[in-house]
Amino acid sequence: MRNSNRGAVDPFIVMDVMEAARAAEDAGRHIIHMEVGQPGTPAPVAAREALAKAMETDALGYTVALGLPALRQRIAQLYGEWYNVDLDPARVVVTPGSSGGFILAFTALFDAGERVALGAPGYPSYRQILKALDLVPVEVQTAAENRLQPVPSDLAGLDYQGLMVASPANPTGTMLDKDALGALIGACQERGAAFLSDEIYHGIEYERRAVTALEISDDVCVINSFSKYFSMTGWRVGWLVVPPAQVRQFERLAQNMFICAPHAAQVAALAAMDAGEELTGNMVVYAENRRLMLEGLPKAGFDRIAPPDGAFYVYADVSHISDDSRAFAAEILDKAGVAVTPGLDFDPVRGGGTLRFSYARSTADIVEGLERLAAFMVARG
Amino acid sequence: MRNSNRGAVDPFIVMDVMEAARAAEDAGRHIIHMEVGQPGTPAPVAAREALAKAMETDALGYTVALGLPALRQRIAQLYGEWYNVDLDPARVVVTPGSSGGFILAFTALFDAGERVALGAPGYPSYRQILKALDLVPVEVQTAAENRLQPVPSDLAGLDYQGLMVASPANPTGTMLDKDALGALIGACQERGAAFLSDEIYHGIEYERRAVTALEISDDVCVINSFSKYFSMTGWRVGWLVVPPAQVRQFERLAQNMFICAPHAAQVAALAAMDAGEELTGNMVVYAENRRLMLEGLPKAGFDRIAPPDGAFYVYADVSHISDDSRAFAAEILDKAGVAVTPGLDFDPVRGGGTLRFSYARSTADIVEGLERLAAFMVARG
Repeated sequence: MRNSNRGAVDPFIVMDVMEAARAAEDAGRHIIHMEVGQPGTPAPVAAREALAKAMETDALGYTVALGLPALRQRIAQLYGEWYNVDLDPARVVVTPGSSGGFILAFTALFDAGERVALGAPGYPSYRQILKALDLVPVEVQTAAENRLQPVPSDLAGLDYQGLMVASPANPTGTMLDKDALGALIGACQERGAAFLSDEIYHGIEYERRAVTALEISDDVCVINSFSKYFSMTGWRVGWLVVPPAQVRQFERLAQNMFICAPHAAQVAALAAMDAGEELTGNMVVYAENRRLMLEGLPKAGFDRIAPPDGAFYVYADVSHISDDSRAFAAEILDKAGVAVTPGLDFDPVRGGGTLRFSYARSTADIVEGLERLAAFMVARG
Repeated sequence: MRNSNRGAVDPFIVMDVMEAARAAEDAGRHIIHMEVGQPGTPAPVAAREALAKAMETDALGYTVALGLPALRQRIAQLYGEWYNVDLDPARVVVTPGSSGGFILAFTALFDAGERVALGAPGYPSYRQILKALDLVPVEVQTAAENRLQPVPSDLAGLDYQGLMVASPANPTGTMLDKDALGALIGACQERGAAFLSDEIYHGIEYERRAVTALEISDDVCVINSFSKYFSMTGWRVGWLVVPPAQVRQFERLAQNMFICAPHAAQVAALAAMDAGEELTGNMVVYAENRRLMLEGLPKAGFDRIAPPDGAFYVYADVSHISDDSRAFAAEILDKAGVAVTPGLDFDPVRGGGTLRFSYARSTADIVEGLERLAAFMVARG
């Protein structure tokens, strides 16, 4: 049967690393996982209890396309709690993960052939989903002095109908402050381009709060998820906040493309939002892991890093050690027993000289991983 | 902010009916729901128990993109049990509902501007999802003598790169037998068009088994779901079966567009597949409901119907009563307290003269609904 051209997207390189790590474990080796981009913790206890209870009394059929009204209400309330933003729940669209949010936002906002600017390095699926939807990713090489976030001058002279930013970003963990975010929103609004703000790592911040694009403008599309801070990756539930005038466009598309986000996940997510103590406990672990990483990675020889403001990643420039991050990651897995992600997933141009280290797992794993990395680098000489 | 053109899809008309029904209920009226396309039953007990147990011991993070290996294996086994087809589990792709299956299949198979033929009447989201993905739905007006299923002569002279059929179909419940299905597959293969078979209502059959396209050819894309027979609509889990050579194309797209189907739903789905007794019990209810409908609808005056082979719908030609199915459905809701779906959702051309009656709910509701419809038609004169 025929294949489409737009479907010929790139695979995730990290999948190869995960496969190699699994093969090594099958062969009896012990591997420390610094490649995975998800918490090791399950959904909060309260979330799982709420679902267990709902399964006894509720048929859990389709919800309305925009999501359970109580969940949309609770998400709107979060914007008051976290950012002091007064948000109308009618603007909240519950989606099947942020993945579903990207598909929905891209189809609602852009027609085939239109161009969406992205900072590189960045989340690899942005460009693959754009390609699959017959849109054109326009990758902007960000500068180290801007902590690998785009700035308006990076966009000068470019043709684009939309811009997607992430703060905290994957793979760098760096954030845009209110001025930086505002300058990018302003650049978009000046040219009538849509502004999309991926805020999936909000809540996982260490020294200051992340700024939501909604603090600056209502004329933006915010993408978020229960996957990271609320520790619910596999549940596939996230949300969008869209401009009031566009709710109907998003709703009609969501009715047809998804029917609804998983009902069970919506029930669990609603309860997760009030699991404050458990979520704070997760953050204590991430903060300690981050402290260990920022101390241990430079000691091991990975010293070209920008301290991450948020998320659970450290992105390291290793171009003085290797210009083939894929081979280098394979060597680290083989010799040190630590799985890490080659930068090529995030930046096809410069990623041959970078690695991403994740510290989303247990502190014991981080301690052991850092020891192994240090010993490996000493032995490598 | 900007809106895309492709995002300007039509709303579901049935949503208006559901909203009107809810408003009537809020005003204190009792409404019989013959508009909804989902079982009234929850997921099987075994499915819910399996998930409750998994929530205690498993973090339920991301699964691999193609789905839990045990679930893919069990789905492949189903093809042996139901159709005596020997299916390689490697060809099974677990998706976020059949909705996710459509998005995945359409992007994997077709480029922007390509044309996909569909029989009308049909599931409305086919054409809306195609439009959202910048594809062109080519609607074929099916004939009553073909029980509203497409035949190769309907396609003669048409330009199309793919054909989607459904058997049992929504809204008619009619099926394609092996010869009819084979003729359509042959017509596609002759011109190099992709053949997509929506088999979401398989298992809900009354007088003979539905035929899967896989009994005829491996060079087809089959779409199925746990929503209907397995009674798991809100869980958003389904599957595709794709040709062996195309698994990688679908996998790369699924990695990027969905990451994975909901893990919790996959766990529940696996257990649902062995809940034979409970599922058979649901079928006994549908069969009795169908018997009542085929007896009661003609008595009430809705006598232009083709007996449905499967699914839980009856599609009635009411053009001798009304040429405005939207207004007629509103009148039935208002006067009879029965919610039904206007045919315009399924067939924009001829649907002004048709209604869809669903019998997915309890037998008591069907009995009451038929009585109300009969009384309404008598009073209407």
